Amino acid sequence: MTPAVPTALLADRLRRAGEVAAGHDVDLVLVTPGTDLRYLVGAGGESHERLTCLVLPAAGHRAPAALVVPRLEAPGLAGLPLEELGVEIITWTDGEDPYLLVSDLAGGPQRMAVADAMPAAHVFGIRDALPDVAQTLAGPVLRELRMRKDDAEIAELRAAGAAIDRVHARMGEFLRPGRTEEDAAADIAAAIVAEGHTGAAFVIVGSGPNGASPHHDVSGRVIERGDVVVIDIGGPLPSGYHSDCTRTYAVGVQPSASVREAYAVLQDAQERAVAAVRPGITAEQIDAAARGPIAAAGLGERFIHRTGHGIGLDVHEEPYIVGGNSRPVERGMAFSVEPGLYLHGEWGARIEDIVVVTEDGCERLNTRTRDLVVL
Amino acid sequence: MTPAVPTALLADRLRRAGEVAAGHDVDLVLVTPGTDLRYLVGAGGESHERLTCLVLPAAGHRAPAALVVPRLEAPGLAGLPLEELGVEIITWTDGEDPYLLVSDLAGGPQRMAVADAMPAAHVFGIRDALPDVAQTLAGPVLRELRMRKDDAEIAELRAAGAAIDRVHARMGEFLRPGRTEEDAAADIAAAIVAEGHTGAAFVIVGSGPNGASPHHDVSGRVIERGDVVVIDIGGPLPSGYHSDCTRTYAVGVQPSASVREAYAVLQDAQERAVAAVRPGITAEQIDAAARGPIAAAGLGERFIHRTGHGIGLDVHEEPYIVGGNSRPVERGMAFSVEPGLYLHGEWGARIEDIVVVTEDGCERLNTRTRDLVVL
Repeated sequence: MTPAVPTALLADRLRRAGEVAAGHDVDLVLVTPGTDLRYLVGAGGESHERLTCLVLPAAGHRAPAALVVPRLEAPGLAGLPLEELGVEIITWTDGEDPYLLVSDLAGGPQRMAVADAMPAAHVFGIRDALPDVAQTLAGPVLRELRMRKDDAEIAELRAAGAAIDRVHARMGEFLRPGRTEEDAAADIAAAIVAEGHTGAAFVIVGSGPNGASPHHDVSGRVIERGDVVVIDIGGPLPSGYHSDCTRTYAVGVQPSASVREAYAVLQDAQERAVAAVRPGITAEQIDAAARGPIAAAGLGERFIHRTGHGIGLDVHEEPYIVGGNSRPVERGMAFSVEPGLYLHGEWGARIEDIVVVTEDGCERLNTRTRDLVVL
Repeated sequence: MTPAVPTALLADRLRRAGEVAAGHDVDLVLVTPGTDLRYLVGAGGESHERLTCLVLPAAGHRAPAALVVPRLEAPGLAGLPLEELGVEIITWTDGEDPYLLVSDLAGGPQRMAVADAMPAAHVFGIRDALPDVAQTLAGPVLRELRMRKDDAEIAELRAAGAAIDRVHARMGEFLRPGRTEEDAAADIAAAIVAEGHTGAAFVIVGSGPNGASPHHDVSGRVIERGDVVVIDIGGPLPSGYHSDCTRTYAVGVQPSASVREAYAVLQDAQERAVAAVRPGITAEQIDAAARGPIAAAGLGERFIHRTGHGIGLDVHEEPYIVGGNSRPVERGMAFSVEPGLYLHGEWGARIEDIVVVTEDGCERLNTRTRDLVVL
């Protein structure tokens, strides 16, 4: 069962979303199933081809908040406190046009924002029902709420971090010479669930040269003694909040001196970037803090991705820790710090922790050693 | 590992998609990760916030076919025969604007179609890079291909049907008095995987009054002797093709005469609808064939949804077997035939088979008894 989000928290989110929308010159926010809907009403909804859509007025707008939902799927909402939240349920049946229902509810807005993840089929359905209304993205509105985690959200992210750390603690059971990456990944996925996640959202086992591809997934490659292996794993807890943690391992023996030297540079870079995190520092400054030591060691070309991404109900969300993002981070923001090195055809390494910004620094939610552990 | 789709099949699909697009007055089809992309190039792609997009010209359009992909994720495409297919890979890195890449590739089209599932964030990104180009949905183009299954697709759907039938054959292990719906569902999900699916896409265990809600999922309700239980289950094979089969069971004892009478009407309705399927009959005629016997028995108000949906790489796709759909079905189309009865607060029943239209009728891909089996 999905843990219930307290009604007062949802009410506050809906109210603030309406206020931020008004500040963004948006009259109405439309949210189809997904993490934005889960954040606002406590359940992500069914994402079938039939339209389910939260119609949320900006503060001061006369339209009521409503959830348009196929009649068939309405019973699935029974556990949600929609009445207490002042959200009217509007059901529709096959044969009706749900976009006209949205248009009736909208009550003549000038500018509507739709959830970033809304499928084009619904975007265009709404556009055609309200051809004179400008459509924009709801992301800029909703991210203002979602990227600042409240205490309950931080507690969930902390629990997720502890759960994935327990999986890393067991890595010696899974990563053994002679097994394929796929074999290891299947065991790791089972351990991710056994440690409290509802599923494995991703299991990257990048052994030897495969570690040099940051988004390598798994393959039939047999793990060999002497391999350096990147393990990047995570998943959602029942609350929907995600873990995401990368550690790099050596199989059987200490790797060569040149690998160890490069790894030491990476580890130093990750430490420095984490140490830099405090309220007021910008995302690009954190990125630069990771990039600096790597560039100084002549390895700048080997670090080919951004330093991190926000995390919460989505694995990747705002704030992105990347060059060009001049947003200062704030207390309650949660994101990864994950520099990596990728030597094409040879090996790769990455070290990733999730951190939450505190009053004067940050809390690391992953606490296992960041050394290159030999298994 | 994902089974490879033969290159010649993919080449044929890309060619035909271009031809259908031209016939729909579309210059360019844009496809982001998902089942449409999997159908066209053999892999669904990563669905991160970074843009991955197939840019497919209509027949006669001068733009080349190209796949725009984040450089980080390009190694994941290594197994695809993109070169043989004449699809150029265009990579981009963080900091670049991928929508401008799409716009450059587009070469001045007048009308573009985007995949139905494309997230609004990408729809608007492309709109802003090509503000003078009308955007429409690619669904009407791609469904013309996808709803007509070739022999390899039918073989996959047949294998999926056999796999889910094996799970239904084991239902006596899972559905027992004293267990909760959730307990039963967890075992059923494991069996769905054990029988060859890569996951359980949905597991509906609607016991007693919960069976009266067609999209009830599972709950903590304890299954009792005497319950009528609706079991609607399915998932994808490694090829991505789905199973979907519903049977209704009685727990421990024969249900009352009134339940058995109503069930007999439902079973007759499902038989008649399946018997009606042949090339040339319209979707709404099949729907009417199911609805007729139920209405004649005075139960018309209890059958509150459409009769069926197409199935393939998506669980729900065209053709929809519903009133108002006057499209004649054709050889190779695959869809569910699943009438149901829902007695609010009391019980529900549904019988669902996937059928494939043959030269002179249809083949049922689910073959377990449709009787109300007492477990």
